[in-house]
Amino acid sequence: MAEEISSKVPEAHPMNGGDGPNSYAKNSTHQRRVVDVAKELLNKAILEKLDIDITLLSNTFHIADLGCSVGPNTFYSVENILEAVQSKYQIQGQNSQIPEFQVFFNDHAQNDFNMLFKSLPQNRQYFAVGVPGSFHGRLFPKASIHIVHSSYAIQWLSRVPEAVVDSSSSAWNKGRIHYSNSTDEVIRAHETQYSEDMECFLHSRAQEIMYGGLMILMIPGRPDGTPHSHSQANMTLQFLGLCLMDMARKGDVSEEKVDSFNIPMYTMSPQELKTAVERNGCFSIEIMSDLPHHQLVDDTITLSQLLASHLRAGMEGIVKQQFGEEIIDELFDLYRNKCEEHASIFKSGKSCNFLVVLRRTAD
Amino acid sequence: MAEEISSKVPEAHPMNGGDGPNSYAKNSTHQRRVVDVAKELLNKAILEKLDIDITLLSNTFHIADLGCSVGPNTFYSVENILEAVQSKYQIQGQNSQIPEFQVFFNDHAQNDFNMLFKSLPQNRQYFAVGVPGSFHGRLFPKASIHIVHSSYAIQWLSRVPEAVVDSSSSAWNKGRIHYSNSTDEVIRAHETQYSEDMECFLHSRAQEIMYGGLMILMIPGRPDGTPHSHSQANMTLQFLGLCLMDMARKGDVSEEKVDSFNIPMYTMSPQELKTAVERNGCFSIEIMSDLPHHQLVDDTITLSQLLASHLRAGMEGIVKQQFGEEIIDELFDLYRNKCEEHASIFKSGKSCNFLVVLRRTAD
Repeated sequence: MAEEISSKVPEAHPMNGGDGPNSYAKNSTHQRRVVDVAKELLNKAILEKLDIDITLLSNTFHIADLGCSVGPNTFYSVENILEAVQSKYQIQGQNSQIPEFQVFFNDHAQNDFNMLFKSLPQNRQYFAVGVPGSFHGRLFPKASIHIVHSSYAIQWLSRVPEAVVDSSSSAWNKGRIHYSNSTDEVIRAHETQYSEDMECFLHSRAQEIMYGGLMILMIPGRPDGTPHSHSQANMTLQFLGLCLMDMARKGDVSEEKVDSFNIPMYTMSPQELKTAVERNGCFSIEIMSDLPHHQLVDDTITLSQLLASHLRAGMEGIVKQQFGEEIIDELFDLYRNKCEEHASIFKSGKSCNFLVVLRRTAD
Repeated sequence: MAEEISSKVPEAHPMNGGDGPNSYAKNSTHQRRVVDVAKELLNKAILEKLDIDITLLSNTFHIADLGCSVGPNTFYSVENILEAVQSKYQIQGQNSQIPEFQVFFNDHAQNDFNMLFKSLPQNRQYFAVGVPGSFHGRLFPKASIHIVHSSYAIQWLSRVPEAVVDSSSSAWNKGRIHYSNSTDEVIRAHETQYSEDMECFLHSRAQEIMYGGLMILMIPGRPDGTPHSHSQANMTLQFLGLCLMDMARKGDVSEEKVDSFNIPMYTMSPQELKTAVERNGCFSIEIMSDLPHHQLVDDTITLSQLLASHLRAGMEGIVKQQFGEEIIDELFDLYRNKCEEHASIFKSGKSCNFLVVLRRTAD
């Protein structure tokens, strides 16, 4: 087991910690909106698909949120799940059987767990624990979790494929920081990495989730059949790459650093996920549903403001690591302008935020 | 349950975080020595007192370390426990039944969990989680833990008794920072607080530890019958108080601040603990044993160096909170001198580091 736990040390890209103006905590309103829009679907999924007999053996119900970041969204999600499970007991007339809840908040060890722990809701109805580690490997004992939840996290790959930053390879991704606007070879290298990562992810969860348990995933994806370059989620990263290349041309950052920088994020389609789940073979797909797009749009701020603030909260860490702190303000100013300039391109792009509910079937 | 989890918000006094020269991580060699000396006793306790049938219902073994601080001592302790449990299975010829281990590292939410998580041993044989919260209240679901361990932590009280910092009270502890060299009223206020805290501690653990499970406590105590003022552990705090009063006389800190500052730490005797356990009624005392004193002594550095470095690592946080960062270096320089000056008094004091093994009995 020791090997299994520690052999994989994937890259970590923590969201901005703390609670300052550029923090993830203050700039994840889109993700919050996803949580709200998904609430009804999630409630329905638990009421219809969860068999509460799986809690018979223990009097504790275990919920895990993978890629939880620092809050507060993780707290809303967990609260929604917990309430839905309680309702299920009430509806079945088993009020007196409602178990205690233990919630496992997971993210990379580099995540700001100190901040997460300090901001735990005072009136929570669960025992809270933090679990450091990559969800591409094992995190929990066998058959120990009833519901796994993960929102806007599994688009992160465990690493940048090696060939992509190897200047001697035909898959070298020169002058770009993402695969989505690159050559077929670069795209294929990422498709392969996605496929391997998803295999590890599903294999680990299959061991950890007990039979009858659920896995609920919220994913920023691209519609089936959409080329990677046309995905809105990908465009936000392409624009960031254009800004970095602009800065390289001005000499504000080195071109080599841009060439060796890639963001390991893969925007999957529902069909790609379906294929991975079927290959794994341990889960049934109970729900796969688009989140209604119009409910996700915030029309109180401009698109460029929204994209810039969210991208900064999510990407500042990984950008700083490569280029240093001093370029950050300039880069994200440029980025806001780039988004304004390219607004019509962005609007022509496709997006698909979808929710998936998987059920752990018996082997 | 919600009330139970969140109603108590005791004071937190985290050890020095990080890994700098004054960090707890680098200045807890005495505590490490305790872990080493206790290893044999701990091994014996688990081999003789643990009934491994308690793991029949689940295939995971749950260990909790309460007041774990930032490591590395917590990792050594946990490793010792885990190996002893594995031995027990092997000796009973149940090698194939060895469960997976999940370890719950607990400390206040203000503890540096980020540091703890980053320094987790790479080759660990367990799933690690962090649990923020006070051990004076509930931390875990009912009957969910097999072995609770706590080393050099339960001497901390949940708070300073109110009367002690109330200038209108007859139990006002003016001019001192600890009860141990104070009036009978101040001592009584602390005895009462200790008694209440231990009741909460044992009541919570009685709910969390499953029948047959063990609680292993390592405690810096005072021998039965020793007055509080004669305890070595207490003297280290008395000396700190003398230094602060010296500084107040010189005008380097305000006397009011010294008057309102008290360290909520209680040095219990084995008999006091025994009384608390018997009053609680949910545990049997399986082992209560002094750790051999001579093995705990480090003769490679002077006593004053040792006391100063350990006290600083453990107390810097709480001192800073009250007096600010700027007095710290001067205070701990003074403290080293005070320890040299009072070395013979210290040596005439009494100490008793003891290990207790409690077993959760059926109600």
